[in-house]
Amino acid sequence: MFSITVRDHVMIAHSFRGEVFGPAQRLHGATFLVDATFKRLELDSDNIVVDIGLATQELNKVLAAFNYRNLDEEPQFAGINTSTEWLAKHIADQLAEKISEGALGEGAHGIDAIAVTLHESHVAWAGYERALRTAG
Amino acid sequence: MFSITVRDHVMIAHSFRGEVFGPAQRLHGATFLVDATFKRLELDSDNIVVDIGLATQELNKVLAAFNYRNLDEEPQFAGINTSTEWLAKHIADQLAEKISEGALGEGAHGIDAIAVTLHESHVAWAGYERALRTAG
Amino acid sequence: MFSITVRDHVMIAHSFRGEVFGPAQRLHGATFLVDATFKRLELDSDNIVVDIGLATQELNKVLAAFNYRNLDEEPQFAGINTSTEWLAKHIADQLAEKISEGALGEGAHGIDAIAVTLHESHVAWAGYERALRTAG
Amino acid sequence: MFSITVRDHVMIAHSFRGEVFGPAQRLHGATFLVDATFKRLELDSDNIVVDIGLATQELNKVLAAFNYRNLDEEPQFAGINTSTEWLAKHIADQLAEKISEGALGEGAHGIDAIAVTLHESHVAWAGYERALRTAG
Amino acid sequence: MFSITVRDHVMIAHSFRGEVFGPAQRLHGATFLVDATFKRLELDSDNIVVDIGLATQELNKVLAAFNYRNLDEEPQFAGINTSTEWLAKHIADQLAEKISEGALGEGAHGIDAIAVTLHESHVAWAGYERALRTAG
Amino acid sequence: MFSITVRDHVMIAHSFRGEVFGPAQRLHGATFLVDATFKRLELDSDNIVVDIGLATQELNKVLAAFNYRNLDEEPQFAGINTSTEWLAKHIADQLAEKISEGALGEGAHGIDAIAVTLHESHVAWAGYERALRTAG
Repeated sequence: MFSITVRDHVMIAHSFRGEVFGPAQRLHGATFLVDATFKRLELDSDNIVVDIGLATQELNKVLAAFNYRNLDEEPQFAGINTSTEWLAKHIADQLAEKISEGALGEGAHGIDAIAVTLHESHVAWAGYERALRTAG
Repeated sequence: MFSITVRDHVMIAHSFRGEVFGPAQRLHGATFLVDATFKRLELDSDNIVVDIGLATQELNKVLAAFNYRNLDEEPQFAGINTSTEWLAKHIADQLAEKISEGALGEGAHGIDAIAVTLHESHVAWAGYERALRTAG
Repeated sequence: MFSITVRDHVMIAHSFRGEVFGPAQRLHGATFLVDATFKRLELDSDNIVVDIGLATQELNKVLAAFNYRNLDEEPQFAGINTSTEWLAKHIADQLAEKISEGALGEGAHGIDAIAVTLHESHVAWAGYERALRTAG
Repeated sequence: MFSITVRDHVMIAHSFRGEVFGPAQRLHGATFLVDATFKRLELDSDNIVVDIGLATQELNKVLAAFNYRNLDEEPQFAGINTSTEWLAKHIADQLAEKISEGALGEGAHGIDAIAVTLHESHVAWAGYERALRTAG
Repeated sequence: MFSITVRDHVMIAHSFRGEVFGPAQRLHGATFLVDATFKRLELDSDNIVVDIGLATQELNKVLAAFNYRNLDEEPQFAGINTSTEWLAKHIADQLAEKISEGALGEGAHGIDAIAVTLHESHVAWAGYERALRTAG
Repeated sequence: MFSITVRDHVMIAHSFRGEVFGPAQRLHGATFLVDATFKRLELDSDNIVVDIGLATQELNKVLAAFNYRNLDEEPQFAGINTSTEWLAKHIADQLAEKISEGALGEGAHGIDAIAVTLHESHVAWAGYERALRTAG
């Protein structure tokens, strides 16, 4: 299995509902380093997993939708505990949609899986990995 | 698959038996950066993998049992080559026990797997990953 | 010159006033990795710069005063653009006060300077360094 | 599953053919941090995955074959787009051969899989993972 | 003293003349992680060292002039051993010029010093620091 | 001011005397990542601070004298609290001697200062910086 990963980041405010979150129930914030990994069994005709330039650009677009924002005020996140692990899935799903729309190039339809890791600090990170439906 | 990881560290002395270890047969030591990863297919009702506060606290307890110690003198490690990879399994197994005892919260019974990585330097690390028996 | 550095982190929300800040004028947030460095010309009688345990504990206390908070709502930051560089100075000044109060131990009165670095992401960080008035 | 990873690096020049590579079609270069991971289900009789000294030495030998070189001029890479992901496979395959030749020791025949990750910068990396044919 | 640092990177090919360089006399390459630090005694009226957006943009422009290139073929580097430490000075001098031209904003004229660090691998980096002539 | 830094590591056991050290009074250990920095005002005739190959080799030799050892048993450290900051000075002084003996090459006599940083974990490090007597 081959993979490539690109890293970007977002700086957001949010709060959590639920006693388990302790002080994080207060409005606070985070820098998330976001690592988006694209996996496939075979390389494309250019000998790559995906155009790293397009991957970087499209990850940046997905993040721009909520960068420098208070997630508690964003309609797309209404009523949701925007935990690090949940955000990892959110970003992975958005990237999957980008691939299916062709935004990462024709070759990207051969991608088999996406994994997203969000680092919330030097001592804690979370991730989500999912398969893509291949064209078959 | 979702995951969260928390990082802590231990500073221990030990030695190895076996020619393969070369100079590491002498009493020496290591700082191990310990990354404990918890994985599950679905998030719990709070939208998380596990309470990150409890995960951090219980990892710290597991490590406290041998932190600032000479492993060669610890009864629990008697006769064992405490290699980095073996210690990764030791810590993973202790965390699995903690989960089964409920120390990471009720929701943690939904965790499917644990992975532990120990970084012994900037150029070498080791890991162990195991499934958890789910309640079902 | 000798130094020791300890690292901790805070997760806060805030916003900035001033066109120069662009999208960061909106309420957003950050994880700051905080590196506090203590410097002195000569080691103390224990052969150290400062008790690393106390340094870690007191840095944690300084950060706890605003960790998991929205800085815009904190009276101590009223009317202030809480830029990364300004927060570095704020933390350095608080640590200087801790030293002068004796919270870092008697030996800590020999510390000559404090430097604080705040990493707001993997691609941007800021710092502040100041001298301490020595007992003379 | 157990694993150990060792890190080394190479500094090479190369260029790419194909519009998808944009400015990277020009002769340029890269430092690749190379992480070689060895995986196995059970530890060997010394309680390790593989002799970390031999693993480090043999990875270094594999890299020495093209370190400080222009890959465009190397016969072994003639006509190949030496993308980061392709180089990860190249290195993994070379390590697999080393294992099969016995260069990583007798115990290394129990290794089940190899994964290689190449970091081309702080914001992009690529990898390849493959199984090894076990002796059985 | 206050400081802010922004990080970017370049991927270049080059070679060195002189026996001291050993195998690096061959055409090879490097990824340089470039950290540009701006220092000043007092913050500007926005409570910052410099607009981090402009600093990032101008550093990127300085690097774009030789990114994805073979430095041996660039007229601006003709006859020069483009060592990591020399490139650090080159970039610092270019940034100083940008500041003097006003490209980092009016407030940037208060910057007292620039430091540039280039990481050529995880085990080697080089830097250069210089004062700026203040307007006074 | 120009600088170059090279990184290596040691894995040692030791213990401390003095209540301030708490649990670290027990025999334990550490991996120290060792960063050795060489500084000078002007580059040498090869456009470098020092031959990075020689710097790496001589740092490795300095560390080899106590790598994989219990510092409590080493005559050279008898009666000394081998704190991270003290070890930084020890290594810096050994490197200064190497330079004065010519082990880092003739050009190295132009080095003005040495700084050594020892990382004992991802959350704590210590350093020492000293001037070199220049030839005059």
